This record gives sequence, structure tokens and C-alpha cells, in this order.
Amino acid sequence: MTLVNTVCRLAARPTGLPQPSDWRVADEPAASPADGEFLVRVEYLSVDPAMRTWMNAGRSYVPPVEVGEVMRAGGIGRVIDSRHPDFVAGDQVHGLFGVQRYALSDGGGVTPVDTTLAPAPVHLGALGISGLTAYFGLLDVGRPRPGQTVVVSGAAGSVGSIAGQIARINGCRAIGIAGGEDKCRWLVEELGFDAAIDYKVGDLRKRLKAHAPNGIDVFFDNVGGEALEAGLSRLAHGARVVLCGAISQYNATGELRGPANYMQLLVARASMTGFVIFDYADRYGEAVVQLATWLGSGELHSREQVVHGDVGDFPEALLALFRGRNTGKLVLALDGAS
Amino acid sequence: MTLVNTVCRLAARPTGLPQPSDWRVADEPAASPADGEFLVRVEYLSVDPAMRTWMNAGRSYVPPVEVGEVMRAGGIGRVIDSRHPDFVAGDQVHGLFGVQRYALSDGGGVTPVDTTLAPAPVHLGALGISGLTAYFGLLDVGRPRPGQTVVVSGAAGSVGSIAGQIARINGCRAIGIAGGEDKCRWLVEELGFDAAIDYKVGDLRKRLKAHAPNGIDVFFDNVGGEALEAGLSRLAHGARVVLCGAISQYNATGELRGPANYMQLLVARASMTGFVIFDYADRYGEAVVQLATWLGSGELHSREQVVHGDVGDFPEALLALFRGRNTGKLVLALDGAS
Repeated sequence: MTLVNTVCRLAARPTGLPQPSDWRVADEPAASPADGEFLVRVEYLSVDPAMRTWMNAGRSYVPPVEVGEVMRAGGIGRVIDSRHPDFVAGDQVHGLFGVQRYALSDGGGVTPVDTTLAPAPVHLGALGISGLTAYFGLLDVGRPRPGQTVVVSGAAGSVGSIAGQIARINGCRAIGIAGGEDKCRWLVEELGFDAAIDYKVGDLRKRLKAHAPNGIDVFFDNVGGEALEAGLSRLAHGARVVLCGAISQYNATGELRGPANYMQLLVARASMTGFVIFDYADRYGEAVVQLATWLGSGELHSREQVVHGDVGDFPEALLALFRGRNTGKLVLALDGAS
Repeated sequence: MTLVNTVCRLAARPTGLPQPSDWRVADEPAASPADGEFLVRVEYLSVDPAMRTWMNAGRSYVPPVEVGEVMRAGGIGRVIDSRHPDFVAGDQVHGLFGVQRYALSDGGGVTPVDTTLAPAPVHLGALGISGLTAYFGLLDVGRPRPGQTVVVSGAAGSVGSIAGQIARINGCRAIGIAGGEDKCRWLVEELGFDAAIDYKVGDLRKRLKAHAPNGIDVFFDNVGGEALEAGLSRLAHGARVVLCGAISQYNATGELRGPANYMQLLVARASMTGFVIFDYADRYGEAVVQLATWLGSGELHSREQVVHGDVGDFPEALLALFRGRNTGKLVLALDGAS
């Protein structure tokens, strides 16, 4: 019996906001595992802003998804057929399985998932790449010290919401920038941020000045554009700007917007540093243990926004991110997810 | 007898390239030193791109020069009258004396100058703030290791020309970016740069790629704009971008240009860091000894472009910098300089 695999392939490189026609969703026969391979039935797909950058040609931290290739995605699924010594049918696993129903794997980059510890979506969020990105980006790149002021842009997103909480847990003053009153209330009332600023209302720089009167020691940037410029304008002496993402720029057409006031880095004797989470792979273990401990003690809250659908719903799910519709980690649960 | 002091005061905040009318030059009676003060006859004025930034209102690394104030400038002069215990008439001294013929000082920030070691203009260049800026910016902020590739923009300027040579002395491959064939030839043939790129001719990014095929480990930026973007596009893994200046932006009107491809810092796991030389004041001594040793051994070459004139010639001297007319350190020697 051959399984039918629904696959979402890149059909065209988008200009600006992607259109559904930039992908092609089709049914194909699922592959059968050869020796050393196994087949995964994908149940949960991680939906992340960075996916937009993978659709572009050119030099980046990972190769672009080529037109015709399966759209790259992290996911969690169940091994249903294995000719690999380390994986057996029934295992729940995490890997870059792509936007498709069935994924063939040789085990590269695939790790077991313990859903007795937390539900699968949490393993894509606070205990997954989002949480790891927040953990190493804030602590290793940002190096906040207790009592310092940490500002996070995109604070209601999957990475930002964790980064701000880790700052708070480490004794910092955590300030979030997010879009909308509901998100801001959530950050302060449920996640324990010291303050949240709705960038859609009023003057961002003035409100940053009011909330961070002594300046920003760590600016954890997921947004770029005006948010980054506002952060740069309020840096404390010796501040660290952590470049995690630039969601405001991912769909820009024409000239991208660099931070016009980048020379504030000189004025503040500050640094702006980029990082890529994959470089920390050999330390994921320590971070997951710490994140799970904080989750268990209730110090860290995780929110996953789980959308149920099928492979063909992926384009709409991704676009929701750029419309600012999600709070926390966006996950697409494929029909029949366990 | 009251001395006549010719003084250059800021008359208006310039928009774009300064006009001579942005300063007012007038004769005033020189002040007489009170107890704890001394009077300096200024002989040499340091002419630097950063002076343009001091003319702007707003937050920077030093307070702006206010309209009506004496234009700020570093200089070297001779004490002619002293009621200060540490300074006697005849001493040659360096300090922020301003663009004027006679400066009153309480000794703050004033240091003796040993012109038996090198002529006064060298103490404003390779042995002065320019040399110190190159030294600490490259070695402390850039942290190049032998064998690495260092690219310097504004390489024919006072700081850039020293920074590239320090890179070469430290076993790095030094590549300069400068404007014009003559400057580029000077960098390679006289200063020992491994390569120099004339940004006025051809595609800067392509030529950076050709000269730095393995990427740029340290980009020492004095220019901003296209030069910075070209540097960012060719960063090696873990590169350091040193923000020293942004001469291409100092006279910009309207929206400043931030580096549109700043997210290359993420791709390259790189950092961009600003610094201010005054923070290194307690280490100036070690740097001057090292710079003087290199000058003495012939490993380091210093070039000063000395323009002779009076206080009223300062505006034209400053504008020459922005027209790319100087090579090395630009110094205005006032009539009668010893």
C-alpha cells in the first residue's frame, strides 16, 4: 500500500508579502524508507517568521528553499515505518520535516520528543527552537546582569515572550514592545513583564524613555525598522543589541530599511550582534533542562496558538504571523494529530 | 598690554555641508589668566571629520558646540603666561583649545608635547588622537588575529591610514578603501597595505570579494553608507565591525542612511561595535609608546598635510576633508607656528 503524501512545495519566489500561489500543494506518493531511513507522519508544524527569509535567494544563514523544493519547516511527528537502528515505529520525533504529511528521514537533526514532559506544541515553542533562541540570544549574546533593563521587540511572539520572561527570571527589568492592547496586557499580567508598550499607539521613543529612564542595557530585537531605531535611540552606556529577527523587513519591497541612527552604537559604546541558534546545538540539552525547570515551577509561561488544518493551510498560517495575529508560538496541527 | 585674540565661533547650526557663514570670526581681547590658569598661544589645530558632528544639536558622545561658543578643536600651542603650578611659559602643550589664537586653560585635559620626539603635527596625527583612535579601535574593539583580513574604509585619512598599518604590523592582511588612484597607490606602495580599492571606480562589493575571498574578519569603518554596506556583505564568520566614523553621512540632509543589509551581522554571527577614544584615556601612555616605537623603527609611516593660515581659514580647511582632498592628517598651522 502506498501512502498519499500531501506536499507543499515552493512554486515561486515571492516579492513582498507571499501569495498562496507562491506555493503548490499536491498529492504525491509517499516514499518508502531504504536501509538507514525511516518515515515520519508529520503531526505539528512550527510556523515561524524566519520561514519568509528562507524563500529568498541569496546569502543567508541557511541555503534558500529552491523553487520546486518542499517548503522547509520544523515539525513533530510519529515514526510509522523504520529501517533505521535508532528509530522505531511509534517514536515521537522532532526534525526539519518540511511542510508535508509524510517525511522520509535518515535521522539527521532528528531528536526524540518526550510528550509526557509537555504537549507536542510546547516542544516547538518554549522547549523548542523558539525557547532555545530566546535562551541563548538573551543570556549568551545579550549578557544581562540583574537590575539591568532589557527591552524585547516582538515581545508577544514565540521568541520574544520567552526572552522577556528569562530576563525577568534573571532579575532584570523586562519591557516588551508589542502590537495591540491585548498583547500588552498579556505580557504584563500573565507573563510578568514590568511594562509593555503598544507600538501602534503614540510615540515609541518617548514611551521607551519613560519606561527605561536610565537607558536600555539589552535590546533584544525581533522586528527591525522603527522598533530597532527607537531602541538604538535609548541605549545605555555599553549596551548590547541582540539581532534575532527583523519581521518588519521580511516582506519589504525595494530598498530595505537599515537603522538610520546606527551611530548611536558609537555614542553609547554599544554593540549589535547577530547569532544563529544552530551554533548552540551542543548546548541545547542544558537549556532545555533549565527551560523545563522554569516551566515546571511556574516561573515561565508558554503559550501556543494551535491552528488545526491540513498541509494546504500552511500559507494562510504563515501569513497570519505578518498580520500580527498570533500571540505566542504559532503551530499548525495537521488533521489527526495525536 | 592686552593681546588680540582671533576667535572662530559657531554662528549657526549647518544643514548639510557647512557654509563659511556658519561660523563668525572676530577679534576679541584675550583673557588674562587668574590663579590656577594659564594662557596658550595656539600654533596647530587638528582638523577632523568629527568636528562636523559637534556642530549638530542632539545626543552624541560629546555635548554639541552651542551657537555662540568657540568652535571646539584639539590643538597644540605654547604657554605664554601662567599662574598654574604645573605649567610654565614656554611649555608646548596639547589640549582642546578651540579654534582661536589664544586659549585660557585651567590645565584640564592638557598634556605636555615633546617636540624633540616628533614635530608638533605628528602629535596631532599618529601620536595624537588619530593614532590613539586607530590603535584602540583596531586592537581593542576589532581584535584582529594574525592572518586575518582587515578592511579599513577612509583608509587614506588620519585614522584609517594608521589603522591599516597597525593591522599589517600585527600580521593581518590589510585592505584599504579610499577615493582616487593616488591615495590607493600611497596606501600600497608607501604604507604597505596589501591592497587598496578606489571606491570611485567600479563595483566595490565585487572588488572586496576579489581581495578578501575568505571574507572580512575586521571591518574598520570611518565612512558609513555604501562602504559599510559593502563591508557587511562580505563579512567572515564571527567578524567584528568597528564603528569609528561615518563621514559619508555627516553632511547628509533629510533621512540618514542606515546599513540596509545590517542583518548580515546575523548571517555572519558578527558584531558591530562603537567606541569613543576618550574612554581609553588611562591607557594613552602605553599606546603612544608603542606608536612612537613603530614610527621610530620605520614600521609605521605618518603623513601630515599641514595647511598654513590663520584662524579665519579654519572653515575652508574643514570643508577640504569632506571634499576628499586630504591624505593623512590634516593640520592647520597658524601663522608664526614654531
